[in-house]
Amino acid sequence: MSGHFSFTLAATDGKARTGRIDTPRGEIRTPAFMPVGTAATVKAMLPESVRATGADILLGNTYHLMLRPTAERIDRLGGLHRFMNWDRPILTDSGGFQVMSLTDLRKLTEEGVRFKSHIDGSEHWLTPERSMEIQRLLGSDIVMCFDECPALPADRDRIEASMRLSMRWAQRSRDAFGDRPGHALFGIQQGGLDGDLRAESAEALQAIGFDGYAVGGLAVGEGQEAMFRVLDTAPDMLPADKPRYLMGVGKPDDIVGAVARGIDMMDCVLPSRSGRTGQAFTRRGTVNIKNARHQDDPRPLDEACACPACRNYSRAYLHHVFRAGEILSSMLLTWHNLHYYQELMQQMRVAIADHQFEEFQAQFDAERAQGDVSPL
Amino acid sequence: MSGHFSFTLAATDGKARTGRIDTPRGEIRTPAFMPVGTAATVKAMLPESVRATGADILLGNTYHLMLRPTAERIDRLGGLHRFMNWDRPILTDSGGFQVMSLTDLRKLTEEGVRFKSHIDGSEHWLTPERSMEIQRLLGSDIVMCFDECPALPADRDRIEASMRLSMRWAQRSRDAFGDRPGHALFGIQQGGLDGDLRAESAEALQAIGFDGYAVGGLAVGEGQEAMFRVLDTAPDMLPADKPRYLMGVGKPDDIVGAVARGIDMMDCVLPSRSGRTGQAFTRRGTVNIKNARHQDDPRPLDEACACPACRNYSRAYLHHVFRAGEILSSMLLTWHNLHYYQELMQQMRVAIADHQFEEFQAQFDAERAQGDVSPL
Repeated sequence: MSGHFSFTLAATDGKARTGRIDTPRGEIRTPAFMPVGTAATVKAMLPESVRATGADILLGNTYHLMLRPTAERIDRLGGLHRFMNWDRPILTDSGGFQVMSLTDLRKLTEEGVRFKSHIDGSEHWLTPERSMEIQRLLGSDIVMCFDECPALPADRDRIEASMRLSMRWAQRSRDAFGDRPGHALFGIQQGGLDGDLRAESAEALQAIGFDGYAVGGLAVGEGQEAMFRVLDTAPDMLPADKPRYLMGVGKPDDIVGAVARGIDMMDCVLPSRSGRTGQAFTRRGTVNIKNARHQDDPRPLDEACACPACRNYSRAYLHHVFRAGEILSSMLLTWHNLHYYQELMQQMRVAIADHQFEEFQAQFDAERAQGDVSPL
Repeated sequence: MSGHFSFTLAATDGKARTGRIDTPRGEIRTPAFMPVGTAATVKAMLPESVRATGADILLGNTYHLMLRPTAERIDRLGGLHRFMNWDRPILTDSGGFQVMSLTDLRKLTEEGVRFKSHIDGSEHWLTPERSMEIQRLLGSDIVMCFDECPALPADRDRIEASMRLSMRWAQRSRDAFGDRPGHALFGIQQGGLDGDLRAESAEALQAIGFDGYAVGGLAVGEGQEAMFRVLDTAPDMLPADKPRYLMGVGKPDDIVGAVARGIDMMDCVLPSRSGRTGQAFTRRGTVNIKNARHQDDPRPLDEACACPACRNYSRAYLHHVFRAGEILSSMLLTWHNLHYYQELMQQMRVAIADHQFEEFQAQFDAERAQGDVSPL
């Protein structure tokens, strides 16, 4: 591969932005939603089907992959792209977030985190240096700094100490990453819900210098209102000429609200996880396919949706395969949800380019307010 | 739909036969393997993917569908084809075999079988007349007679009494089926491992007259040797100008042996069920993908196979997703197994047409004798 990592802003509308990230593995249209391929697979989807939904980039999880099948094994097999049959860009997280959530199984020091595997109890270390090494072995296109992320609510001292540790780790991540043309390293802003800490973090990151900047430490229990309050100012603290990535978000209305506030990239397990539990996201809100009201309904989930679940099957069928515990239920609903998310991103990209983002938001809200179709 | 059900024999080689069944919903090339779509889905497969493996026809299970979502509901929704998005032929079993296997939950009389649902314990009746009604509501293209099928070993009196009951039910099935152009009714030969009873059953069925004839009561624990002994004579007792269907068979070598003995159609859950438990069928025998020897193996399951699992993934990856409990493991291995089965059928059809079936069998045996690839 040749080529470099670059971000080009094409248009803004209010704070909302659209553009493109170019990488040696292909273009990422922004705002971008990244489906999550935790264990080297977007659950219940072939990668060509994920691509068919419109996804330009996937997210892989360092924590899961380092434990199984291990980064060294993936490296020997030619890297994560070849391993999982996805030749377009991959962003990997640093492992930090998932390790921190192993509350009873980890020990945090200045050096890094010692933890026990949830799979077999074996002991492992993650440090900024080791996280950079793992993400290099995986062949990640967009590498995330190793950081600490406290669950909210937490008191200010805890948030401040954690943010400053993350900034020291950001410097160590930058040093360990080195110079890798065509690969990007993103810093992660922390600071919880505190504007001053967010500003301090943003300044520290820019002093180090990154190819992109994430807003971290949100979607950890604070609720949408608090998250949006942070997003009213946090993205503006980050450089306008670099992509801004909101980690782990979210529901469709979270995503629209984040884009409205200047976010360019997002990821979340929600569309795939919800697909497996029978929740479908549609223009008209969430549909719970296991509800008995669907059992005789010949209509598609959404008559305006072009995904295979909506083109080829009735609600009655989707209800049936969910109730029968069939794998096809997870396959079809995951496909639908990922399709819906990507279509939402595409509509936002067009609306921003056309300077119609407010109109888009009004229609988004109006369709959701209608609610799901009437009972038969 | 217009058109009629017909069977055309194109070539024979020894006892092996190749030809085609024409139905208003399309052609079925014989010998044919029918993937099983128990609950209105071939597990872990989109129907278009099942078709892509080369399947011309699916099997649906009356027992499962009558309980959930019910035949009446499927009928209201436009029939099984539309319900499950498969517009080609569907064969449905009669429910008899599965009801009989509910040993503790059913009561058998001359009239039929009363049984309790494995899902919710609710009570149901199956009779020849009700089975015909259900299969009509489903919209089945090839309908099977309602029969009784004792597990083997069983004593001769039990087999004889059961076979004669099945023949009385065959007449009732024929009467209840009526005249339905474009739809076929198949009789089912019983008689266990006893040649005289098989002959009596074949004669009774022909006296009634059916569009095709199944060899029933095998693959119920008797072993391949005993099954082949029956198949050395049973198919010859059935009319040469009608399709002969061996129910519930089997492993690849069972299938080749059955075709060699004059069988035209088969069905089995084995390729899909094995796919979900990590067993892959290949030219060189069965590969257990969960075995640790695959964990670093960059080679495909079978370098000569054109299925997506073999084209796009290493054994190491298939091992990983199986171990990680990922749905994709079931998807890929099921696809591979169904592809392998359909390729086997296609090779047999060509070999029979070319009068090379013995050579085909010799190569089939030789490749299997080689065993799986050498360890790395």
